[in-house]
Amino acid sequence: MDVQDLVEYRAIEELKYRYMRAVDTKDWDLLASTLEPGVTAEYGHRLTFEGAQKLVRTLSRIMTDDIITVHRLSQPEIAIDGDEATGVWALTDRVIRKRDRVLLDGASIYRDRYRRGADGAWRIARTTYERLYESEVSLDDTPTFRLTEDRFAAPEVR
Amino acid sequence: MDVQDLVEYRAIEELKYRYMRAVDTKDWDLLASTLEPGVTAEYGHRLTFEGAQKLVRTLSRIMTDDIITVHRLSQPEIAIDGDEATGVWALTDRVIRKRDRVLLDGASIYRDRYRRGADGAWRIARTTYERLYESEVSLDDTPTFRLTEDRFAAPEVR
Amino acid sequence: MDVQDLVEYRAIEELKYRYMRAVDTKDWDLLASTLEPGVTAEYGHRLTFEGAQKLVRTLSRIMTDDIITVHRLSQPEIAIDGDEATGVWALTDRVIRKRDRVLLDGASIYRDRYRRGADGAWRIARTTYERLYESEVSLDDTPTFRLTEDRFAAPEVR
Repeated sequence: MDVQDLVEYRAIEELKYRYMRAVDTKDWDLLASTLEPGVTAEYGHRLTFEGAQKLVRTLSRIMTDDIITVHRLSQPEIAIDGDEATGVWALTDRVIRKRDRVLLDGASIYRDRYRRGADGAWRIARTTYERLYESEVSLDDTPTFRLTEDRFAAPEVR
Repeated sequence: MDVQDLVEYRAIEELKYRYMRAVDTKDWDLLASTLEPGVTAEYGHRLTFEGAQKLVRTLSRIMTDDIITVHRLSQPEIAIDGDEATGVWALTDRVIRKRDRVLLDGASIYRDRYRRGADGAWRIARTTYERLYESEVSLDDTPTFRLTEDRFAAPEVR
Repeated sequence: MDVQDLVEYRAIEELKYRYMRAVDTKDWDLLASTLEPGVTAEYGHRLTFEGAQKLVRTLSRIMTDDIITVHRLSQPEIAIDGDEATGVWALTDRVIRKRDRVLLDGASIYRDRYRRGADGAWRIARTTYERLYESEVSLDDTPTFRLTEDRFAAPEVR
């Protein structure tokens, strides 16, 4: 690793942070901008995608305002080889499904591949994660639970 | 972004980490050292401050030893323009209010402005966050809940 | 801090991330590779170790597949002095004990010492943390709780 590598690490980290912020704010154009057109994605056993367009379309359809997601990345381990790079990340995530009153918590290890385009920008070429665990619980188990803030609430409910 | 920018990014990150550590350890002098005197702060809709002295005084009054807070920052996106800089951060926070037995969980996106002083040190000039969500639940919903460690417990209770 | 320090900070950060990933994936060889032979470790009041071999052996015995752990590091504040360095970190951790159905949540401040060996690699020489809080709750309080993913489940249960 030399000093110039650090500039590339930083660019890759901020790429990944934009990707994650795009998901949690449901900013689908921002999400698309972080992906190679031919990206492959495997989120555990259940969600796999081929192609940025399919990924963005499906997520935008699934993740309605009924669903609050919080994904938090930390612990990046990055390695660069020319215009290719790999990244290992720790993820924790929480999903609140308001209508059917489910709280999901999980933790994963992401393993990604990045590619630098002709424009000099890094994009996600392949993203996969392995779950350490995922749990679900009904909010009916904790009857006093209430949302006191919700960015995605309809205005009259907010 | 060039290599020298990375030195400034690092300084801004460690500034923000000291700020957050100061809040969770209730170290009000450390907190004051991270703020410009004229700082403005907007924590969601409910907590807004003008001036470092007011911010520190109010927080120190509100956040008694009855309250445990855990704030965790990740995903920094920083940009520098001369002696000014902006930062976007992911926050998760948990607050445990022991006396009235409430557990609060939340997640936010911070958007800050930093300024470099005549002494070369960066300080927080403006800090705002937008909540993704915030939830509250009574600890009476989970009757077996107990604190097995508490940095702020009175010695006899510890 | 100068630019070359950033290369060392990065090496120390990735060391600490490997250490943490080793714990959560129960990869005891990877864990051992991050430690000086004479490492001392103090995890709160209850878990203290002298020596890498003892630490790794004890953790590997305690942390059976019955136990899921998720440790997440953020907010590094690092300082280097020659071949020695110190690091302050924020930690949150969750432990799920499947057999006796306990969920533990905690948050700590890590304070570490690192040393650079003759081979140029940084290793952990001393690691300590102070708990902000730790809580336990029985999963029987939330009867609908279920694990939907578990990396350490026996194949037939998975």
